[in-house]
Amino acid sequence: MSKLESAMETLIDVFKYYSSKEGDKFQLNRSELKNLLQGELGEYLEVSKDPALVNEIMSELDRNKDCAVSFEEFLVLVTKLTVCGAGFFQGYCSTVVITCAHR
Amino acid sequence: MSKLESAMETLIDVFKYYSSKEGDKFQLNRSELKNLLQGELGEYLEVSKDPALVNEIMSELDRNKDCAVSFEEFLVLVTKLTVCGAGFFQGYCSTVVITCAHR
Repeated sequence: MSKLESAMETLIDVFKYYSSKEGDKFQLNRSELKNLLQGELGEYLEVSKDPALVNEIMSELDRNKDCAVSFEEFLVLVTKLTVCGAGFFQGYCSTVVITCAHR
Repeated sequence: MSKLESAMETLIDVFKYYSSKEGDKFQLNRSELKNLLQGELGEYLEVSKDPALVNEIMSELDRNKDCAVSFEEFLVLVTKLTVCGAGFFQGYCSTVVITCAHR
């Protein structure tokens, strides 16, 4: 398996780990999203210092307003943070609620 | 660094590895995209058996029609393939040019 394919598998594994804890195992509810943000994105986001951030991210990701984040909606977060965090693209940061300033 | 953060770093590293070979190091031209697809996505796509696939993917990803694929456009491919490839979501496959049948 290539580096890219194993990274893609990791995205699936991480989502499954957190989404399978309660209710619909294919989606993240608010507390599952908070656990994921705190457990996996500490370097990108300071959720513990900014409790409102979870609601902010939840409302931005939950495009179909079903109070849950699907795998595809989760990948939107990954895309935005990866683009923002990519020092390689210094000065390039797509407009996102999650501004790079949160890092 | 968490599993998710290292996967995100890998997405950046893989893109940089292929985009830095020729011309604009922030973008993949057609041959760089072909090398990436062949080198990194062999399990997801059978580019060698279907040469037209590179053009098909290039035209789908190159949204601003500048004959190059940016990092953000590349992540669209990663998102579609990851959602399609996620056995966890069997039966769920967002409509993409790159149908799961290619696997």
